[in-house]
Amino acid sequence: MSNTYGTIFRITTFGESHGNAVGVIVDGCPPNIEIDEAFIQSEMARRKPGQSKIVTQRQEDDEIEILSGVFEGKSTGTPIAMMVRNADQRSKDYSHIADRFRPSHADYTYQEKYGFRDYRGGGRSSARETLARVAAGALAKMILAKVNIKIQAYVSQVGPLKLTTDYKALNIPNAETNIIRCPDDAVAAKMIEFIDETRKNKDTIGGVVSCVIEGVPVGLGEPVFDKLHAELGKAMLSINAVKGFEYGSGFEGVEQFGSQHNDKFYADEQGNVRTQTNNSGGIQGGISNGEDIYFRVAFKPVATIMIDQESINDKGETVTVSGKGRHDPCVVPRAVPIVEAMAAIVMVDFYLRNKAIRLD
Amino acid sequence: MSNTYGTIFRITTFGESHGNAVGVIVDGCPPNIEIDEAFIQSEMARRKPGQSKIVTQRQEDDEIEILSGVFEGKSTGTPIAMMVRNADQRSKDYSHIADRFRPSHADYTYQEKYGFRDYRGGGRSSARETLARVAAGALAKMILAKVNIKIQAYVSQVGPLKLTTDYKALNIPNAETNIIRCPDDAVAAKMIEFIDETRKNKDTIGGVVSCVIEGVPVGLGEPVFDKLHAELGKAMLSINAVKGFEYGSGFEGVEQFGSQHNDKFYADEQGNVRTQTNNSGGIQGGISNGEDIYFRVAFKPVATIMIDQESINDKGETVTVSGKGRHDPCVVPRAVPIVEAMAAIVMVDFYLRNKAIRLD
Amino acid sequence: MSNTYGTIFRITTFGESHGNAVGVIVDGCPPNIEIDEAFIQSEMARRKPGQSKIVTQRQEDDEIEILSGVFEGKSTGTPIAMMVRNADQRSKDYSHIADRFRPSHADYTYQEKYGFRDYRGGGRSSARETLARVAAGALAKMILAKVNIKIQAYVSQVGPLKLTTDYKALNIPNAETNIIRCPDDAVAAKMIEFIDETRKNKDTIGGVVSCVIEGVPVGLGEPVFDKLHAELGKAMLSINAVKGFEYGSGFEGVEQFGSQHNDKFYADEQGNVRTQTNNSGGIQGGISNGEDIYFRVAFKPVATIMIDQESINDKGETVTVSGKGRHDPCVVPRAVPIVEAMAAIVMVDFYLRNKAIRLD
Amino acid sequence: MSNTYGTIFRITTFGESHGNAVGVIVDGCPPNIEIDEAFIQSEMARRKPGQSKIVTQRQEDDEIEILSGVFEGKSTGTPIAMMVRNADQRSKDYSHIADRFRPSHADYTYQEKYGFRDYRGGGRSSARETLARVAAGALAKMILAKVNIKIQAYVSQVGPLKLTTDYKALNIPNAETNIIRCPDDAVAAKMIEFIDETRKNKDTIGGVVSCVIEGVPVGLGEPVFDKLHAELGKAMLSINAVKGFEYGSGFEGVEQFGSQHNDKFYADEQGNVRTQTNNSGGIQGGISNGEDIYFRVAFKPVATIMIDQESINDKGETVTVSGKGRHDPCVVPRAVPIVEAMAAIVMVDFYLRNKAIRLD
Repeated sequence: MSNTYGTIFRITTFGESHGNAVGVIVDGCPPNIEIDEAFIQSEMARRKPGQSKIVTQRQEDDEIEILSGVFEGKSTGTPIAMMVRNADQRSKDYSHIADRFRPSHADYTYQEKYGFRDYRGGGRSSARETLARVAAGALAKMILAKVNIKIQAYVSQVGPLKLTTDYKALNIPNAETNIIRCPDDAVAAKMIEFIDETRKNKDTIGGVVSCVIEGVPVGLGEPVFDKLHAELGKAMLSINAVKGFEYGSGFEGVEQFGSQHNDKFYADEQGNVRTQTNNSGGIQGGISNGEDIYFRVAFKPVATIMIDQESINDKGETVTVSGKGRHDPCVVPRAVPIVEAMAAIVMVDFYLRNKAIRLD
Repeated sequence: MSNTYGTIFRITTFGESHGNAVGVIVDGCPPNIEIDEAFIQSEMARRKPGQSKIVTQRQEDDEIEILSGVFEGKSTGTPIAMMVRNADQRSKDYSHIADRFRPSHADYTYQEKYGFRDYRGGGRSSARETLARVAAGALAKMILAKVNIKIQAYVSQVGPLKLTTDYKALNIPNAETNIIRCPDDAVAAKMIEFIDETRKNKDTIGGVVSCVIEGVPVGLGEPVFDKLHAELGKAMLSINAVKGFEYGSGFEGVEQFGSQHNDKFYADEQGNVRTQTNNSGGIQGGISNGEDIYFRVAFKPVATIMIDQESINDKGETVTVSGKGRHDPCVVPRAVPIVEAMAAIVMVDFYLRNKAIRLD
Repeated sequence: MSNTYGTIFRITTFGESHGNAVGVIVDGCPPNIEIDEAFIQSEMARRKPGQSKIVTQRQEDDEIEILSGVFEGKSTGTPIAMMVRNADQRSKDYSHIADRFRPSHADYTYQEKYGFRDYRGGGRSSARETLARVAAGALAKMILAKVNIKIQAYVSQVGPLKLTTDYKALNIPNAETNIIRCPDDAVAAKMIEFIDETRKNKDTIGGVVSCVIEGVPVGLGEPVFDKLHAELGKAMLSINAVKGFEYGSGFEGVEQFGSQHNDKFYADEQGNVRTQTNNSGGIQGGISNGEDIYFRVAFKPVATIMIDQESINDKGETVTVSGKGRHDPCVVPRAVPIVEAMAAIVMVDFYLRNKAIRLD
Repeated sequence: MSNTYGTIFRITTFGESHGNAVGVIVDGCPPNIEIDEAFIQSEMARRKPGQSKIVTQRQEDDEIEILSGVFEGKSTGTPIAMMVRNADQRSKDYSHIADRFRPSHADYTYQEKYGFRDYRGGGRSSARETLARVAAGALAKMILAKVNIKIQAYVSQVGPLKLTTDYKALNIPNAETNIIRCPDDAVAAKMIEFIDETRKNKDTIGGVVSCVIEGVPVGLGEPVFDKLHAELGKAMLSINAVKGFEYGSGFEGVEQFGSQHNDKFYADEQGNVRTQTNNSGGIQGGISNGEDIYFRVAFKPVATIMIDQESINDKGETVTVSGKGRHDPCVVPRAVPIVEAMAAIVMVDFYLRNKAIRLD
């Protein structure tokens, strides 16, 4: 069951990095949604390899095919299956690691858990699985567009380089105009240079993706275990390489006093209930309060480096793992659409769940 | 469904802070576990109000009653229901907030979501719900004890005061000898003083709880969506007042290069596969690798302060919310057993799930 | 997880026949429903032992206590926990079967599955668990009343005695005026006499409960696996002693030709789409079509008889099992409210699920 | 969520009869199972159209493609996606029903539920969806083979023609030697003739499929809601055209006295606990007792007949629906592998669930 996410709007993904195909079934898409295939494809393009000099140079078109659930251009309410055939599969690139465990990869844990693994490119543990999430997320975004919920993510940190500007002062769409996806062009330039340098050193570096959700109605999220931020947190932590999640004031908020941190309510000119500050990150008691939701997601440095590393093989012998193949020096530029996709999936799910709780 | 957590080992909680009772049904407890009621009660005592001068002075015994699922002192494999009758209910303490929304509480969001709320002490959004989690967590700990998995949490930050010592250098059980539950007595003393000062200022402060899980076998956690750290993250983020979660190298890890961050494998003298460092926090590809799991949980300052605050009522009129009643100036000392309980519930669930994935 | 039923409207039951209490948590009850405790109690009375000469003579008041989720007489949207303390527990009545397996009871299968069992009165396998379902079903009925869905069950067969009249020709509420709950008084009298005779012979007999659901809007039920009749079937088959389920034309329908069996559509005077016949039992493709839903549920004869039976004990030795205690000679009169309760739970769940599938 | 079935071993199907493809994701297949593609294909052949003169003459090869989850001929523990491209799609055959509701089909209920439907060949409500179940069932059978559980179904009734022989006296594998799949050749011949006659009359007829599961260990099935027979019942009732389910003594058992119906325990020569009779159908208290499980499934006559029928269109106007296309005069011969597939899926799921309930 671990390959399914969501309650009402539910995605189930399949596929390994070097198998026949990677894909997803989206169950619970409302009927009568116009399905814009070009938009899905454009979201795929934001995630795909080879899109710039600071990402992996693998060439994959990641062309999505819709297999079911759409009739005359609209969703029918039945499962929408989508699939990408794997192309540029250099499985031979991986024969050298068939018997050995790459440091900080899932090779060892998969081997132990299942007694057997598809060693080609990480198999199921490969981030290639996330293309299925982006396809499903594109559907989710189309649904959210109909209810005016908007999700935007951007890179806010690469290694030691932090974008400290508050998101409200940023022109977030500008992030899509540079290859690192940071809305501040000056900081972006430094980040790109830093990654380029890191790549030349055959090394990798971590980063942070920030995300803002606007237009959320009051009342989404469930109390107790399925709090809106708990699900967002799980969704983000389920993305490859993620090490942390914080929303609103986050870890910094612990240093504040209650008198500073509390968000005071007021009624705006239209009579809407608003808060003067938003340390709550748009969520109180696990439920959206109508303010912007914002959160940050920490990504570790990519585990595959081009430097030789000592490790062991499946017999416990010391071996050298050499970095081969074409890999990302930093995941965050390609992670931006994945973060948005998972956020969109969570929001659609809660939107639909919320319809089911009241009789009227 | 939002009041249920877990897949195989599953808890469903009920109860409001000023209703008749708060309790839990634990479904999926393996049979033949000896149930130590005194241990459950001792865990309840670690969470209960009035236990020290730095927590709320409400007096509640929180005496647990087991209603089902135990026969001749052992679990039968059927649901174990446990309940605490609410005592010291000063519902009148809350009549002054029946029509108004306390800042950074869930009053407004519950009102909007349900069109109606139990305003007494936060009702279902009260942290009183967590006593049910602690009772269930005590069961989970008994099960984990049989498979030698051990969970220990402690306070590692209060406001600006941080315990920076690596957990391996700490005597964690010492945390239970002081009222803030910090293993370093010197830091503990400062934290206690800081909280006491904050309380005198009628204010509240945030903090961080750290948690270490030892003895975890290789292979727990599921790939893709139900990664071990994703579930731990959701479980922690579902606790009242939590704003962030990070494991292993966490947010700091993003500043490292891959060559620094990667955990190199080696075989120890017994032939066990180990890693030289543990930036992975005991989890690779979402699955435990046999090293210690460790993580940090950020708690915001308690929203209820004794200082008057401006807010609005349900008619949108500006009103003053005065702090009344007996509240915690800082949640972290009482949060320690809650963090442990949720971690224990997650670990038992994955332990049992793992048995179901292989045929042999 | 086997103690939870439902998706959006979800019940989790607990308790053994001779433990402290039996109860239920209902999660997902919409807020603002007026909770009529007297009605819940009256439903409990329809199920309770000792209500007539043809049921078990155990005396249990089955007084329900609401523990949570109701404030000022209305549901709050949070979990509603309800509980009955076990009274008249003659556990000693069961010491004679502690080591032996009663024929056609769950003694042996529980012992093998769990390695251990609460042998008192069947423990968790006792039909006493169904009181929790009836309490939850009473809530479900209150919700259905607000949307004009009405559920009525009645006894249509006892042993060889069948009520063959079509349900449309019956005055179903009349069933509640006699102790067997059969709407036709003449047939009822024969059934009562038959059961009385059977009881005098220290034996038991099976029967059939029929159920009709009126006022169902078009569109409830999900295609493919969660078809409306598939869930109704599972819900009924989950009741103790049930051996079969059929809806609409059922097993008899297999002898018909398509040209006889098909329900032709027409538009009535108000323009509503109706069918001329209703062999479909109100469900087409798993989804309600607005016609009455009707189904039949087969109950086997009660396994506990007052006649000595040969069996074996847990050492494999041949032993005699003597019938002791106070038991039902036929379950169907007490099963009527249980069938209604489970049907009500299924219908509320689908009603709420249906709200979640469309965006508008 | 209605397109997913199972808890640990979980299938999610997609696809419409005239869309691009029909397929399934199987999540939770244990690793290291040798995947025999030829066997999967042979199961597909048992279900496929055109296999004999008494089934629909549509020609579809139903060639399955495995998209993921298999490496070097063995399951890896990751999701196994399988797909069949739709071929022989005569969508034009359906243009005449685009605006009208075929009697006893799901046209009207889908239209009302979703406000929109794929009218080609029933879309998602088509029994073509069941090919995905058969593919998943073939995997399930491979798993069951490793633990010696064997499932066999056969046709036991067509219209008024009943095979009354007890299953123990039948040579069930012989069913596969005739086109109706009835183990008794004489009865089979009559059934075939009856169907042929019905087909010539442009009509259709119902039937019953019986199923026997041998080699089931004691202890499968969960108490209370997820009883083994309740899940089998739901699984069967979820198959297109099913109207009833009974197991063991079924509906006939209600006429027996407890003293007749009870299955007395004895210890066989090897010391195994057995029952002298098997009215329980191998299940007591919802849990397998080691005896054969057997059940019967009622299928209504196919709704599509070649005779003109009166109906209405989506404007409420009276119209004629003419039978066109190529359809089955009786579903039961093709339903046999579907019943087996769903039974296999249920049994694997419970087998794996059972591993998760005990700590040892």
